[in-house]
This record gives sequence, C-alpha cells and structure tokens, in this order.
Amino acid sequence: MTLVHTVAELRAALAPARAEGASIALVPTMGALHDGHGSLIRAARDEADVVVVSVFVNPTQFNEAADLAAYPRTLSEDVALAQAAGADLIFAPAADGIYPEGFATTVALRGTLTETFEGAERGVGHFDGVTTIVAKLLAMVGPDCAYFGEKDAQQLAVVRRVVADLSLPVRIVGCPIVRDPDGLAMSSRNRHLSPAAREAALALPRALAAAASGVESGRLTDGDTLEQEAFASLRDAGLEPEYVRAVDPESFTSVQELDGAVLIVGAARVEDVRLIDNLPAASAAPRRTRVPTAQAVTA
Amino acid sequence: MTLVHTVAELRAALAPARAEGASIALVPTMGALHDGHGSLIRAARDEADVVVVSVFVNPTQFNEAADLAAYPRTLSEDVALAQAAGADLIFAPAADGIYPEGFATTVALRGTLTETFEGAERGVGHFDGVTTIVAKLLAMVGPDCAYFGEKDAQQLAVVRRVVADLSLPVRIVGCPIVRDPDGLAMSSRNRHLSPAAREAALALPRALAAAASGVESGRLTDGDTLEQEAFASLRDAGLEPEYVRAVDPESFTSVQELDGAVLIVGAARVEDVRLIDNLPAASAAPRRTRVPTAQAVTA
Repeated sequence: MTLVHTVAELRAALAPARAEGASIALVPTMGALHDGHGSLIRAARDEADVVVVSVFVNPTQFNEAADLAAYPRTLSEDVALAQAAGADLIFAPAADGIYPEGFATTVALRGTLTETFEGAERGVGHFDGVTTIVAKLLAMVGPDCAYFGEKDAQQLAVVRRVVADLSLPVRIVGCPIVRDPDGLAMSSRNRHLSPAAREAALALPRALAAAASGVESGRLTDGDTLEQEAFASLRDAGLEPEYVRAVDPESFTSVQELDGAVLIVGAARVEDVRLIDNLPAASAAPRRTRVPTAQAVTA
Repeated sequence: MTLVHTVAELRAALAPARAEGASIALVPTMGALHDGHGSLIRAARDEADVVVVSVFVNPTQFNEAADLAAYPRTLSEDVALAQAAGADLIFAPAADGIYPEGFATTVALRGTLTETFEGAERGVGHFDGVTTIVAKLLAMVGPDCAYFGEKDAQQLAVVRRVVADLSLPVRIVGCPIVRDPDGLAMSSRNRHLSPAAREAALALPRALAAAASGVESGRLTDGDTLEQEAFASLRDAGLEPEYVRAVDPESFTSVQELDGAVLIVGAARVEDVRLIDNLPAASAAPRRTRVPTAQAVTA
C-alpha cells in the first residue's frame, strides 16, 4: 500500500492504473477510522480495481473551532486499518495543499437539503464545506465510484444531489450503518465518550428503534408525536436532543403524516459529544393516494 | 463531424477515443460562432486528438431577460463554421438537459475577481452562472484542455481560479482577441449593430489603444486620468461608457499607479448593444520596488 501527501503524488500513483483502464474507487474519510470506514473500504475493494482512501480533517466543514481541534487524528492507525480492509493508496494531504492562498471557490447546494437538520444545527457553511471538499477530492482522484456511509444520511443525499447537478462522472454508493454489538452507531467521535456517556448514548438508537417500531405498527401516525416521544426518552437518559424527525429520505423534508416510507433521523448531545443516527421505517398503513375525480379525469 | 444533444450521447461518442488515451479538447461557446471562435477551435485542433465544441446559450449567466431572448441562435451556421475550423464533435444540449428539475447547485467564486467590472455590471449571478456551467461542461466532456478567448479576460481569469481551486484536471488555454480589419473585437453581439453603431463602436478599441499608448509612453501615470480620458472619447463618439480601468490581469484589482504591466479593460454601450474589449500595456517606467531598510533586514 502507498501513502501519498500531495495531489501530484496522488495523480502520479494513479496514472498507470488509469492508463490501463482500471476502475478506481474513492473512500473519502476524515481519518480516525473505525469498522464503519472498514466496511466502506471492503465494499470498494469488492467492486473496483484500485481503492483510494483519503484522510483529511476538512476544516471548512466544522462550525466549532473546539470540535475541529478535538477531532481525533490517528494517521498511523488509519493506515493499518485501511490496509487491512484492502486499500491500495492512502491520500493524506496537508490543509495548505488543499486550500492554497487565494482559494475562494465554493460548491454550494441550496434548499431544504442543506438548510435543515445538520445544516440548521451546524450552520449553512457545514454542507458548503462538505460539498466543496467532496468535489475537490473527486476531481483529484477521478474515481469511477465513491463510497459514503449511510450514518451521515443527509450528507449522502447532499452529495448525490451535487454529483447529479454538476454532471460529475462518478457513481455514489451508500453503505449501511455499522453498529457496535449493543446498537450504538460507530463514529469517530465515540472515542470521546466516558463509560457513563457511552452507556447513555444508547438512548439514541433505542429512541429511533422505538419510533420506527411505532411507525411500522401504525401506532405512531404523525411526526410531532414521534418527535415528542423520542425527545422524552432521550432526556430521560440524560441526553440533550437536537432533532428527531421522520423525513423524506431524498429531500429531507419533514414528514408529518406517517403513511409511507420515511427515514427517522436523530441527533443528540451527551456530555460534549454530538451523536447522530438514523433508521428507515415504513408504515403498514397504505400511503394515501389521490383518486382523480371524474371532473379531473375529463378536464 | 458528429452533432449530439444529450450527455449520454456525448459520453458515448467520446468513450472510444478516451479508452485509446486520445487527448480531448473542449471549446465552450454560446453559439453564434464567428472567427474568434474559429481561432479557438483551430488552436484546439493543433493540440488535441479530439476537438469538442459545446454550443449552449446558458440562461443562468444572463442578468437581463431581454439580452437572453435577443442572443442570436444559429446552430446550422455554427455547425458549418465549427466543422470548417476542425471540430470533431458538437455538443448542443437543451436547457432542461443541463438544468433538470430540482437543480440547486452553484459553483461560486467570491472576491474581487467576480465582484468588479463584469461582475458589478451584470450582477454577482453572472459569474456564478459562468463558473457553474463551465464546471458542468468540464465534467461532461472530461477534456485535457479547454480554450477560452482573451476578449472575455475577466471570465478567463475567473475560470483559471475556479479550475485551480477545485483541482480540476484540465489545462485552461487563453487565445488572443480576434479583430475585424478596422479593429473591432469580434463578438456574437456585433450582429445586432446598425451600420452607424458599428462605426461608433470603433471608439472602444481606439480608446483602449490610446490608453495603452499613454501608459507605454509614460504620459499616463494614474488610473483615474486614464479612465477620464477614455470616458470622454467614448462619449464623444456617442457611446455610453460602463468602465475603463487599468487592472491587475490576474486579480482584476484596479491599478492606480501605472508603473508596471496592466490590462486595460473597457465596456460601453452603443444603442442597445453592450461591447467589451481589453488591451495589455506595460509602462516604460520601472515598477517601484520596496528597498528593505537596514532595520527590516536585521529584524
């Protein structure tokens, strides 16, 4: 496996494979790799000839300086995990190689998808930072496919929209959330949890599971009640809820009448750690369809 | 020569050449081709294996609906001119193929380069429209090099900056302004000029030439005087000046002390037609350099 730090090294390392027509996969990460990332790398390994893992803690997507400073940096462990999962090349650039002096371009997606939930909590600059760095990494690597975790479901939807809007020639692949045996979604931030907070954090996947179960049984029929129940159970466990909502999985518009397939998304804080998670759910109740009236049909 | 209208057709047409490692050049145009475009296509023909000309009147870069509506559409003549100049493939998409429903992404460059001159006159949305469509065309075609006219000097500087900022794997080539024998820079909008306006329009290249001559002889030493003289001569000829300034050719910051190399940029209206033009000039006077004091050197 090769570790490179500059775009020139990256392109030189990929040139022979590209010239031979090999397929290239990109797994973009901010490092602090865990088995969730491992699952992305293994999925990429299964499909592509060459697997590139980028490791870059992107400063422009952090709205809190303290969060950026505290974000774990563990490059030597990352290299070992990526290699074990099947990566061929790790690209770990320095920030000034990504954002040189005079840098002034943003790839910006506007609308509900970037302004709600994570966009509302972390500020509109968060997704601008995400979409700009993803566009740059795609331009640097030139992959045929790129792998993203479904844990960051809104980010995945944002990336899919930007890739479609900019006609980028890459297939975006979403991979399922990887959970610890007790149900907590893996996250680089979990290593900041104290043992007590780690235990309390389980309230988030439990609240989402209860909500999904309520939707699927038909007990929960509206988004507001779903939110109220989830907030109550999170607060009971000592978490500070940010949002729990049933949303349309593509547009992330909030769904109030729970009569079809939704994604239940949630975010909460425990101690100083921010947790996010999500779970799909489909109501057993038939989705209401609009039956055209005779007048509408003949109009 | 092949004419295609969709991205799928475009990519299919380019796939064999790309698989063989052929070099691909893109000449992005808004159609209404003239010999200025011809010079871009010939330059591309000299350097690349496959020359793609895109013809798309991009609605998002027009700030005036009337200007967009009046913009000439001449596809059959464009195809003939492009073929004669050496194009292999013309890509002429429909607007809804470029901007499908739900499109919401912008590639935005912020700062002096997009906010002054053309950005100020046409609104900040103008360059957002330009940079977004150029990013999309580069993603659709995947060229090794792309050709832009130096007549739109600010656009060229904007495109260079965005390509560098987004790490796009393409070489941007600027080609010299092509002028009619009497000195008027070729432009698709010139066909809207009445004979009298066509004659009056010559005042713009003459004003720029007088300014360049004044800078090079050392007679003009400040940007304000350059502007005043040029505005006076444009008004004498019946033109309505928008701007005439000496600028830094990369950043488009206005230069007041004319003691080095500058680009003199100008825009004016005659009847309802907007004209732009530019000319480089270098003062004979040596550029002032900052001699470090003993204190600064030893500090």
